[in-house]
Amino acid sequence: MRPILETIPLADALSLMLSEARPIERIERVALDSAAGRVLATAPVAPEDVPPFDRAAMDGYAVRAEDTFAATRQAPRTLRCLEAIYTGQSATRSVGPGQCIEIATGAPMPDGADAVIIVEETDRHADDVDLFTPVYPRQNVGRRGADIAAGQVVLQAGDVLTPARVGALAACGTADVEVYAKPRVAILSTGNEIIEPGQPLGPAQIYDINRYTLGAIVSAHGGEPIVLPTAADSLDDLSRAIDRGLEYDMLLFSGGSSVGDRDLILDAIARRGEIIFHGVAVKPGKPTALGRIAGKPVVGMPGYPTSCLSNGYILIAPMLRRLARLPPYRPAIARVPLARRVVSTTGRHQFYTVRIENGTAVPAFKASGDITSMALADGYIEIPAHVDIVEAGQLVDVFLF
Amino acid sequence: MRPILETIPLADALSLMLSEARPIERIERVALDSAAGRVLATAPVAPEDVPPFDRAAMDGYAVRAEDTFAATRQAPRTLRCLEAIYTGQSATRSVGPGQCIEIATGAPMPDGADAVIIVEETDRHADDVDLFTPVYPRQNVGRRGADIAAGQVVLQAGDVLTPARVGALAACGTADVEVYAKPRVAILSTGNEIIEPGQPLGPAQIYDINRYTLGAIVSAHGGEPIVLPTAADSLDDLSRAIDRGLEYDMLLFSGGSSVGDRDLILDAIARRGEIIFHGVAVKPGKPTALGRIAGKPVVGMPGYPTSCLSNGYILIAPMLRRLARLPPYRPAIARVPLARRVVSTTGRHQFYTVRIENGTAVPAFKASGDITSMALADGYIEIPAHVDIVEAGQLVDVFLF
Repeated sequence: MRPILETIPLADALSLMLSEARPIERIERVALDSAAGRVLATAPVAPEDVPPFDRAAMDGYAVRAEDTFAATRQAPRTLRCLEAIYTGQSATRSVGPGQCIEIATGAPMPDGADAVIIVEETDRHADDVDLFTPVYPRQNVGRRGADIAAGQVVLQAGDVLTPARVGALAACGTADVEVYAKPRVAILSTGNEIIEPGQPLGPAQIYDINRYTLGAIVSAHGGEPIVLPTAADSLDDLSRAIDRGLEYDMLLFSGGSSVGDRDLILDAIARRGEIIFHGVAVKPGKPTALGRIAGKPVVGMPGYPTSCLSNGYILIAPMLRRLARLPPYRPAIARVPLARRVVSTTGRHQFYTVRIENGTAVPAFKASGDITSMALADGYIEIPAHVDIVEAGQLVDVFLF
Repeated sequence: MRPILETIPLADALSLMLSEARPIERIERVALDSAAGRVLATAPVAPEDVPPFDRAAMDGYAVRAEDTFAATRQAPRTLRCLEAIYTGQSATRSVGPGQCIEIATGAPMPDGADAVIIVEETDRHADDVDLFTPVYPRQNVGRRGADIAAGQVVLQAGDVLTPARVGALAACGTADVEVYAKPRVAILSTGNEIIEPGQPLGPAQIYDINRYTLGAIVSAHGGEPIVLPTAADSLDDLSRAIDRGLEYDMLLFSGGSSVGDRDLILDAIARRGEIIFHGVAVKPGKPTALGRIAGKPVVGMPGYPTSCLSNGYILIAPMLRRLARLPPYRPAIARVPLARRVVSTTGRHQFYTVRIENGTAVPAFKASGDITSMALADGYIEIPAHVDIVEAGQLVDVFLF
């Protein structure tokens, strides 16, 4: 058996993982309907002004502002209304002195008019309209190109398409858009004991958990999980799995990175490429390895479900987001007092799960083999390697799942 | 023209919208692979213990604890190793006094053994193993059922399936799961001026923005957007659109809820059901209406893109999450000083977009017709109706997009 002789600090592991995650270069074109959350690959240039014409910004009457300057509630000005235009229509007349045109929000301004007086400040008698207030030129007018000017670079390459940015592309008439491809991540659970849910358990067998939890992490952080068939613990099987995995942008193995004779994933990586580190000073999650094969990052995750998933949050998510060109994750945080003292004397950075109960953080961690350490928790706190004790009542930041 | 005579406070509008959003009852079965983020509809019961057997929690030797009690580094105890078992294997022998079996993390404990001594505390000479430390009974043993006991209710109906909860279901051998259906939301942009992106603009026409921004909001908050063909501004067209929309769980119209003669959506709702409110004291976004037709909520959103989308964030997202049975949204928040004084004397609750620049919140709002008011912002601050001025330097919570 091969013990892990040395671990590297969590921060160093993260930094090495980030430097192995080269942002994806592959580009694809997607319909605007499904572009939200994607990362823009090219900076779109507006082909036309938005809005494409001067338009009424309020419902009311399009007027020549100078005709309104003397208007008061006591002494209204009266204009003759020529016609009414609604959105989608253009005026057939132009507005001369003493004239106005009824106009709906969004309709193009008629020639001759330079302002809109809102309907609430008017009174209509047949074709005559009394105005109770002056308006200044351009008041209540949305000017052509005020939102986006023709030729303007609307968004930048690398921008994440928020709903509003999708809207800005729609405003320019864009029906589809070039985005960076989602990194495709090969996920493989290794181990002779692992079987797929839905089948009956044999002796010494357990169900595969990690492929599901890692798949969920990959999907949540901009990647596309590709689940490879479970590989047995033999160098040849693992080597074949690596061959399949190298079609994708990153390989994520779980199990087989501990110290047993049969923990062959390290040998399999070393045979095909190189090991960058093995062993991280984090609890749980110490038996984690990073390698590189044919320029692609290969991560050996712990087999234990909580160790695997906690490293999924603190190492894989940041790595994936770099790969996917997404900004760092911003988890929701609850700052609450710790309900009970927590002792953490391992000298490792601890990922410690808690439930939020009555506004306090209650320890929820059971064991790194127990998925319920996380499934029945609301989030986690991090306890740095040099901190031995966090006292009851101390405020902690809970990163919510 | 019909002005909005009265508005209701934003909090009242939100509360009415939430009470119209009856949590969805429809259930569907999905593969565990695609269950992350969904809401569990039935509480799963574990059919078997997890783990299904006592297992080694560390790599080392399975021993009878009492054989180790006297072991020290100076005076090791020596045991005879009978065989080695790896994960997926069961021991062929049982461990008697003076004996041990080499065992890998996750392998089933052999009969007779009640503890595991870790490999780092041993030294091997052929079949003899020196032990340098005592272990207590059950030390380094993961007990059968310790994670999840057979018959245990693993999760609760209504739980959102985080990655860890998906993992807990996998641990129980669950291949698919009953979740609440995603609410299907019919989205319809009304207005004669609206055309689809990808087509050339005619005179007085603009591209549809709201169907894209609302679709993105619906998808982001647990719903499934169903885009209906754009409807023209006629009562008959709108009535037909309502008929199509009533196949879904909620109807979301944009445009036509302002006060123009052709703002017929209110008439269309009133003809088929009832109006619950029209006009909200929020800026932008005042011309927003809520109705009910055949028991289904119908929301008339403002036509202006920023008004529509800002209400998407502050009204539609909470409503949808209620419908979808998701917990309230927890946006990431940046607490930063405001770069410039903002004046908000409208008496309405203001949704005010900002960019984060040099650690300060810089006003980004242009006009409610301008999608770039939001697309070029990083988030928004809220200014309550009774607050007129927020001074430069004051700390504000920016809700990040």
